[in-house]
Amino acid sequence: MIGDKKDKFYFLYERERIKVEKKLEQLLQDRKPASLYLPGSYILRGGGKRLRPLLVLFSAKAVGGKLSSVYNAAVAVELLHNFTLVHDDIMDNADKRRGKLTLHKKYDVNTAILVGDSLLSVAYENLLKDCKDNIKPVLEAFTKGLVEVCEGQSMDKDFESKKNISISDYIVMIKKKTAAMAEMCCKIGALLGGGSLKDIRALANFGENIGIAFQIQDDLLDIIGDEKEFGKFVGGDLMEGKKTFLLLKAFEVAKGEDRKKLQRVIDRKGIKLDEILVYRELYKKLGVLDDAKTEIKRYTDKALMSVQVLQNNTDREFFTWLANSLIKRSK
Amino acid sequence: MIGDKKDKFYFLYERERIKVEKKLEQLLQDRKPASLYLPGSYILRGGGKRLRPLLVLFSAKAVGGKLSSVYNAAVAVELLHNFTLVHDDIMDNADKRRGKLTLHKKYDVNTAILVGDSLLSVAYENLLKDCKDNIKPVLEAFTKGLVEVCEGQSMDKDFESKKNISISDYIVMIKKKTAAMAEMCCKIGALLGGGSLKDIRALANFGENIGIAFQIQDDLLDIIGDEKEFGKFVGGDLMEGKKTFLLLKAFEVAKGEDRKKLQRVIDRKGIKLDEILVYRELYKKLGVLDDAKTEIKRYTDKALMSVQVLQNNTDREFFTWLANSLIKRSK
Repeated sequence: MIGDKKDKFYFLYERERIKVEKKLEQLLQDRKPASLYLPGSYILRGGGKRLRPLLVLFSAKAVGGKLSSVYNAAVAVELLHNFTLVHDDIMDNADKRRGKLTLHKKYDVNTAILVGDSLLSVAYENLLKDCKDNIKPVLEAFTKGLVEVCEGQSMDKDFESKKNISISDYIVMIKKKTAAMAEMCCKIGALLGGGSLKDIRALANFGENIGIAFQIQDDLLDIIGDEKEFGKFVGGDLMEGKKTFLLLKAFEVAKGEDRKKLQRVIDRKGIKLDEILVYRELYKKLGVLDDAKTEIKRYTDKALMSVQVLQNNTDREFFTWLANSLIKRSK
Repeated sequence: MIGDKKDKFYFLYERERIKVEKKLEQLLQDRKPASLYLPGSYILRGGGKRLRPLLVLFSAKAVGGKLSSVYNAAVAVELLHNFTLVHDDIMDNADKRRGKLTLHKKYDVNTAILVGDSLLSVAYENLLKDCKDNIKPVLEAFTKGLVEVCEGQSMDKDFESKKNISISDYIVMIKKKTAAMAEMCCKIGALLGGGSLKDIRALANFGENIGIAFQIQDDLLDIIGDEKEFGKFVGGDLMEGKKTFLLLKAFEVAKGEDRKKLQRVIDRKGIKLDEILVYRELYKKLGVLDDAKTEIKRYTDKALMSVQVLQNNTDREFFTWLANSLIKRSK
């Protein structure tokens, strides 16, 4: 969930989220062959915030477009997102996602490869349904999002074996792996909604910055999140030795014994369960949890600045609420 | 290679094939990250007939379009084709393709999944470069080709464990897995070349029928092809117990002992190397090699019929030569 029931925009978001959910539920159910579309349906029933389709919808609305004219595009970005999840889960050998078996564990790797491909094919199919006059920039933006998410995933894989990754390398990677997609969602929403160049740029900018903030927040939640709510095991990134914002930032400031301790995370490709608290304390001591919060705030502020150009006050308020809710989230 | 050096159209085909080859060679070489685009380049250097891009080029030309305005689209269909090869090779656990290590053997499965995805992303990127006025039908046709190739691959996988596959099930499967792509190549070539509805339909029809003929020919070559020229092990389909046109047709006509022999191919999931000759003789006895030839001829004739509507005599001749060369091929 995003936000709180007492929030002004909570029900607006929920109303649209539920509509998207229903569309996703029905999307593949009657398609054949079932060997392809049943596993596809399984993965689309995974739930979640549905942030990306909602970015499409509210970006279209913010520029004066009709929500009803961009639902297929909204579904398309969620399909693209799920395509990346299915293939990433194979690569990460992940057993579960949001408490459910990953596709390649529920079925097998071959099915998961093909179903991932198929979700992407249906993504383009749906996107095309909502394209009218400005089809070229919409398709270009969508395809750029796809190109970048592949590049970002490849960089993320490279990081596993590379030494001396800097924070700026990390930012380049998450821009491609996470932020490019959020940017694309806002951009195609604004394009399909008939927005001005200024509005399109503003919303794309909002998406990119909120995407970066979202990813750093994700890294932070791995350490401070509530395990039950977050769904993932807290400390999982450390146990895998993942080069997160926190670990890379810690390397930038740590000296002596602290540095050696951090080096052990890399050398041993992760730490043990009973070491997580030790490292959490180290992160606190080095101030990297606060550094992360500062960066999250900085990118969120950039996002909020960009949407100030929107004409309608309620739209500005909505995007402000959305950005703040994402920062405050615990999963 | 397609055709013979003494053929009138051989050098025309070769000239364009070499141009496509060069474009494919340069396409990814300077792109970053190298971890993604170097393996991509490796797979694009695999050679082959480059039939699909050539269908795009000559379809555009046949309707009065310029070759120079559809090279990116030609590259796009070859990228799409290679995306399917990379992922299919993982699913089939294939070690080699055209004498070279498959991508997942040269690198690893995770790289191959991601590089496949990336080839598809660059495919759309390239296709969009050649799209002008009629972008929507072009993108729709390309996406339909992608949707169908996923569905066809899923059906092909289903066939492995299904009993009682009929020849008509088989035709539906190869229409999706092989013919839809050839149909799409001709269609987008004709669309981009500015063809009339009649021309577009004629060329799409040519593509579909030649695609079906091509696949049945592929099944036939597994039994009668020259091993050195064909590149694949002759009899490989039988050794894997694959439900080819030949095996399914044999089941339709075989009785008694012959039928039991065929059933063994299914039950044991393939035959041994030293049994291939026995089964070749059985196929001959049952007449299924001739049945295959008849079907190949029938679909080729349908293809040739469709291109008779083309205005220019040389174009009609070219497509006739192309179709006949494909039937006569030994690999």
